[in-house]
Amino acid sequence: MIVKSYKYRFEDYFKEEIVMKEKLADRLEEMENKELGDLMRIIGRDDLISFAGGIPDPAVFPTAKLNRITKEVLDEKQEIFYQYSSTEGDDLLRDYLVEFLTKGGLNPKREELIVTSGSQQALDLVAKLFLNPGDKIVIEKPAYVGAIGTFKSYQAKIKEVPVEEDGLKVQLLEEYLQGLKEKGESIKFLYSVPDYSNPSGARLSLKKRKEVLRLAEEYDFYIIEDTPYSELNYYDQRLDYIKSYDSTDRVILLGSFSKFFVPGFRIAWIHSSSEFIELASKAKQNTDLASATAGQLILCQAGKEGLLGEQIERVAEFYRPRLEAMSEALDKYFPATAEWFKPKGGFFFWVKLPEGFDSRDLLKEALEEKVAFVTGSAFTVDSTEGSKYIRLSFSNSKPEDIEKGIKILGRLIKGYQDLEL
Amino acid sequence: MIVKSYKYRFEDYFKEEIVMKEKLADRLEEMENKELGDLMRIIGRDDLISFAGGIPDPAVFPTAKLNRITKEVLDEKQEIFYQYSSTEGDDLLRDYLVEFLTKGGLNPKREELIVTSGSQQALDLVAKLFLNPGDKIVIEKPAYVGAIGTFKSYQAKIKEVPVEEDGLKVQLLEEYLQGLKEKGESIKFLYSVPDYSNPSGARLSLKKRKEVLRLAEEYDFYIIEDTPYSELNYYDQRLDYIKSYDSTDRVILLGSFSKFFVPGFRIAWIHSSSEFIELASKAKQNTDLASATAGQLILCQAGKEGLLGEQIERVAEFYRPRLEAMSEALDKYFPATAEWFKPKGGFFFWVKLPEGFDSRDLLKEALEEKVAFVTGSAFTVDSTEGSKYIRLSFSNSKPEDIEKGIKILGRLIKGYQDLEL
Repeated sequence: MIVKSYKYRFEDYFKEEIVMKEKLADRLEEMENKELGDLMRIIGRDDLISFAGGIPDPAVFPTAKLNRITKEVLDEKQEIFYQYSSTEGDDLLRDYLVEFLTKGGLNPKREELIVTSGSQQALDLVAKLFLNPGDKIVIEKPAYVGAIGTFKSYQAKIKEVPVEEDGLKVQLLEEYLQGLKEKGESIKFLYSVPDYSNPSGARLSLKKRKEVLRLAEEYDFYIIEDTPYSELNYYDQRLDYIKSYDSTDRVILLGSFSKFFVPGFRIAWIHSSSEFIELASKAKQNTDLASATAGQLILCQAGKEGLLGEQIERVAEFYRPRLEAMSEALDKYFPATAEWFKPKGGFFFWVKLPEGFDSRDLLKEALEEKVAFVTGSAFTVDSTEGSKYIRLSFSNSKPEDIEKGIKILGRLIKGYQDLEL
Repeated sequence: MIVKSYKYRFEDYFKEEIVMKEKLADRLEEMENKELGDLMRIIGRDDLISFAGGIPDPAVFPTAKLNRITKEVLDEKQEIFYQYSSTEGDDLLRDYLVEFLTKGGLNPKREELIVTSGSQQALDLVAKLFLNPGDKIVIEKPAYVGAIGTFKSYQAKIKEVPVEEDGLKVQLLEEYLQGLKEKGESIKFLYSVPDYSNPSGARLSLKKRKEVLRLAEEYDFYIIEDTPYSELNYYDQRLDYIKSYDSTDRVILLGSFSKFFVPGFRIAWIHSSSEFIELASKAKQNTDLASATAGQLILCQAGKEGLLGEQIERVAEFYRPRLEAMSEALDKYFPATAEWFKPKGGFFFWVKLPEGFDSRDLLKEALEEKVAFVTGSAFTVDSTEGSKYIRLSFSNSKPEDIEKGIKILGRLIKGYQDLEL
């Protein structure tokens, strides 16, 4: 019954006969992404063991402390709490970000920072500033579904370069760039999530961080370094930002409070040259004028009180047992013919199913047994290739549910294999 | 000294030699808008009598009640207060909007509404969904600077149709549409702010509302009806939405809490067919995923308690004396050769300076005497024409300051005239 309703909505999602179709922009053809719509619907359901949503568990939020801070800020800042913020973001929050990033090994100035409405807006602003239709960019394969969607909406020509456990296959990137160069072509930028990438869980090694920066200089492109998971290290320290080696302003750093702190404020940032930040500010004026004020004031105070630093340690303790539970369950219940590695942070396992398997079939069966995940097809431009994979998020399920859910998935995969043999 | 620093920043605003210029998108050339950057800087200064910013005065916000509601929501909804909202917006807020718009004479369903991060985001989403580079649209002349900026950033070909006190000159619109039709061409949409338009203060008459809708049907285009000032009626009742006569889903209604309630939450909405809302939701997923949660929860509770209805009456009492003060001061101090009309709501007077005057020269002199306004050039695509006008906002100055500031402007204009003669 659940599956039936799900299937109905899946097929219904994109209506062909909408009345204004002829009036709509060409980019709409690029923007079709059934998987993301389906994903959002699965996330909204609470009758499932869900490995689908890449969202933090509210149980780890520092709610009591945030409530106290919110009430204090409300009383102390009531003259600005309900008013517009500035387009670049609250000055005190940007000053806090200077401090935060300086601790992280960077050396930003306030005017090299802009507050954005989530990292998703940062992606939109970057795409708006860089991309003409048909411009070439490189992304990781697999890559964040929301980044693919944004870049497609600006009609970029996307080249995917595969990742392995230590990140992007840099040699393949160089071969591609060299091939372009011989034709007198180049890319606008490389989009990379260096730490615990969504969905791959891969972390770009320090050596490779330096290599992609060298390539950026040699082949003249920008690097969009997106770091939403960079504070979610459960076993060791954070690696240096690519940006920390950037002496020629080629790296545009995106960061976010959404994964390691709380997402509801929709507050993130871009750090780049002051010239680029000024352009981003112009683009933001035409996009949402300014980010919501309350969250900026609250985050600023939370930062001053040291709550963000505390939280970075707290989330590691909170999510590590979930990562371990999923790793153990996968070892125990999944067939040896499936492939994955154990990530060292973030929210995700990225599993290649045994040969001949389509993750979309598995999802239908899994939903009947009330287990959800996201098919890999959402995270690649070519969904046929992606459908051999599944993304399993451990962030929002308790260890015992993780074991239970993975056991069910393992049984379904093995049962399907037995049928085939 | 002030003027010197202002001029310096003005010229400095757009650097020609930014390092990545060759990598940037073509749309950047359309996005240059010195006036908006200057405007934002003037707004930030507190040493001026400022008629520049079109922002509400926090003195009229229902701060004490909102503080109480915020604290209650914080305690009662802490499990969702810090988490992501859905892309379409909180269900209860959308249900409240159904009620709000139903009172306003519409008949929306929840799925015909999406919550946006300010009306500015609604404009961005609409532009993203409709516009290919070079597509034709019509806007009012003068029109909201942020709308012009957004439409330019999508490289629309913009036709401006002049407004008068009762709104758009509909006959000129029809002549333009007829001319296009003879060439086999059409426009994608008309963008209109029917009530107390920023900057003109004009209100589209009921008769003209029906006429533009008839034209939309006859010449096959959409109407983007943007209503941020529609609740700000200081002398009589709100006129019907154009949308209320729309039987063929041609009107996409934008509304906002920013002007009549509070702007800091960055919460606004789009009301259109469920098909269009589904597309807008897809576009929003790729733009900021979801609007900030806290403001949605607080607004929903404020609405339930009747606070929004109360506030609509309160703002009329608050702003009417300011409108009156500006009207009287203009009559008293401005030369008879300047032209304006007295609006019946909103925030703005739009004044045509005496022949031969450039508002940019006046602004320089006015800033030396610590009075600010916005030059009309910001509100037109052709800034030469616009520079004959000034926009005077009465929303954020007390009546006595309004008199003082208008007296200074009147003296500067008359002095300049005397010099010329």
